[in-house]
Amino acid sequence: MKTFYSPSHRDHSPPHEFEMGRLAPAVEIPERAERVRMEVEARKLGPVLAPSPFPDAAILRVHDRGLFKTLCGAHDDWTKRYGADAPAAIPSCWPARGLRERREGDIESRLGTYCFDTATPIVKGTWAAARKAADIALSGADAIANGARAAFALARPPGHHASGDVYGGYCYLNNVAIAAQWFVDRGLKPAILDVDYHHGNGTQTIFYRRRDVLFVSIHADPSFAYPHFLGFADEAGEGDGEGFNLNLPLTAGTGWDGYSQALDKARSRIEAFGADVMLVSLGLDTFEYDPISQLRLKTEDYLRMGECLARLDKPVLFVFEGGYNVEHLGTITANVLEGFSGA
Amino acid sequence: MKTFYSPSHRDHSPPHEFEMGRLAPAVEIPERAERVRMEVEARKLGPVLAPSPFPDAAILRVHDRGLFKTLCGAHDDWTKRYGADAPAAIPSCWPARGLRERREGDIESRLGTYCFDTATPIVKGTWAAARKAADIALSGADAIANGARAAFALARPPGHHASGDVYGGYCYLNNVAIAAQWFVDRGLKPAILDVDYHHGNGTQTIFYRRRDVLFVSIHADPSFAYPHFLGFADEAGEGDGEGFNLNLPLTAGTGWDGYSQALDKARSRIEAFGADVMLVSLGLDTFEYDPISQLRLKTEDYLRMGECLARLDKPVLFVFEGGYNVEHLGTITANVLEGFSGA
Repeated sequence: MKTFYSPSHRDHSPPHEFEMGRLAPAVEIPERAERVRMEVEARKLGPVLAPSPFPDAAILRVHDRGLFKTLCGAHDDWTKRYGADAPAAIPSCWPARGLRERREGDIESRLGTYCFDTATPIVKGTWAAARKAADIALSGADAIANGARAAFALARPPGHHASGDVYGGYCYLNNVAIAAQWFVDRGLKPAILDVDYHHGNGTQTIFYRRRDVLFVSIHADPSFAYPHFLGFADEAGEGDGEGFNLNLPLTAGTGWDGYSQALDKARSRIEAFGADVMLVSLGLDTFEYDPISQLRLKTEDYLRMGECLARLDKPVLFVFEGGYNVEHLGTITANVLEGFSGA
Repeated sequence: MKTFYSPSHRDHSPPHEFEMGRLAPAVEIPERAERVRMEVEARKLGPVLAPSPFPDAAILRVHDRGLFKTLCGAHDDWTKRYGADAPAAIPSCWPARGLRERREGDIESRLGTYCFDTATPIVKGTWAAARKAADIALSGADAIANGARAAFALARPPGHHASGDVYGGYCYLNNVAIAAQWFVDRGLKPAILDVDYHHGNGTQTIFYRRRDVLFVSIHADPSFAYPHFLGFADEAGEGDGEGFNLNLPLTAGTGWDGYSQALDKARSRIEAFGADVMLVSLGLDTFEYDPISQLRLKTEDYLRMGECLARLDKPVLFVFEGGYNVEHLGTITANVLEGFSGA
């Protein structure tokens, strides 16, 4: 299996995030992707390749131009306002009910208009990394379109929390959605399976009114878990998209037994959809020792997850998302890929 | 002039606020109200009185019950989730476009649903202080209704950024709006003049579709100043309220010349409205040495402001709002009251 990777992600290294009332050290850090790359190399799972450049147009098929421009210029605009030594750019005020969105305003109002949390800082290297992560996902999609059974887009920063016009949850551009749209534009019918601990609210929102892309997500119940405001079982799609969104929220403490049942449901739905290609939003924060999560998958369960996905007998693009136990992240990520490849 | 005051505000003492990408020491601190009280006493501007208790019903005329309950229980709910030593409660994720509001969810989702910034922490004493501040405003209104020419509600925390169902901007309950509604419910026709440096977005929103309360605000242009998402000159009211909202945004650096021109416009509009009573959202952060502001009123300008307000020849309830130069805050606040009383 080809892995697409670029070292540009290393310059996206926010020192902290704001949550639970305090600044905490960032958990979405460069070492995450490095550990995974090293394990892919150590296990000889296939070549690790640089991504090809894709045009902005491929991203603008999914993302609002105002979001794109804001992300692109945010670091410059922020440091122009607060100085070269300013801390990472994070919104502190947003247009809640009764307030006006300001898509063309100063940097404070644009961050507040385009972002939905305080955990997604913008530093100098953020835009280059996020833009390259989209190229990584598109390069993986291209490999699939050219006949590969599978590819791994080792994209960082992750993407699944970013919708067409809102970023957040450590995500800026929605890598998996950009790749799915790229498949659609080539006449293919993609299904997205999101196995990250956190609901893929951005991906869901992008395709919520469409039936040409199926979105299925297995995640911790948002009644207690981030992203809090989406991911409930009653969200089934709207309009043309009705019936083409499936959320399978899990209670805290769920282990492989409960998880695999949800996985079976997801597979059945994807089977019935008749997808040409599957994209997996591969978050590894379902791990029992993940520092910010409450599910309990074990190291060997990720091998089974890979085997289970292989049984769908479809080409699969794996797109890297969350997972914050850096020590074990390489192992469990590679387990999914190895379980898939060996099955 | 009677001043209404309660020491309960002292227990609302958040250590910090999150903005510009960092935690900064709080500027909305107990010493503010203490300095003003001491100056009122030193100048013998009138008695300083404890407020009377008013029923919750008076607050619920203006505020959503869900916001009221959330504020009331937030500290308990937050410390139940994060422990007794948790930092002050501040939202870190909110329901932007495409996300669902959750008015009945867990504490994280309710803070995100009901708040619009990260500068308005909830600590143990917040609710008691905010609830008492509403009583202070209502006690002032009661004094006016009983024939006083003026009263001063030395309310803290401030209120003008809080709308019916959103809190923020150091504000939890909208003291001036609660008092204005109390006047309406007694058959009076109130006009609110907001002279705080920051636009009174909460007050505007509460009365935006109504013609029984006029709202006029003089403030720094939101194109560069907080609250960023409301306070523009084109906001004139909607529906029944069309023409009953007047925003007079000022450019950075405006001094008394420009300010007094805006004040004249405000007075003309209030005159034309034919108010029975005027409420002044008395923010003092228009001061040249205010640490977070960019207008340039001088100490003596506040005497003139008071004289100018007296020329309207209406009963006036002053309700304390912002103003963060603690050293001068007593002086400039008392100058407004003295300018008014002496005129």
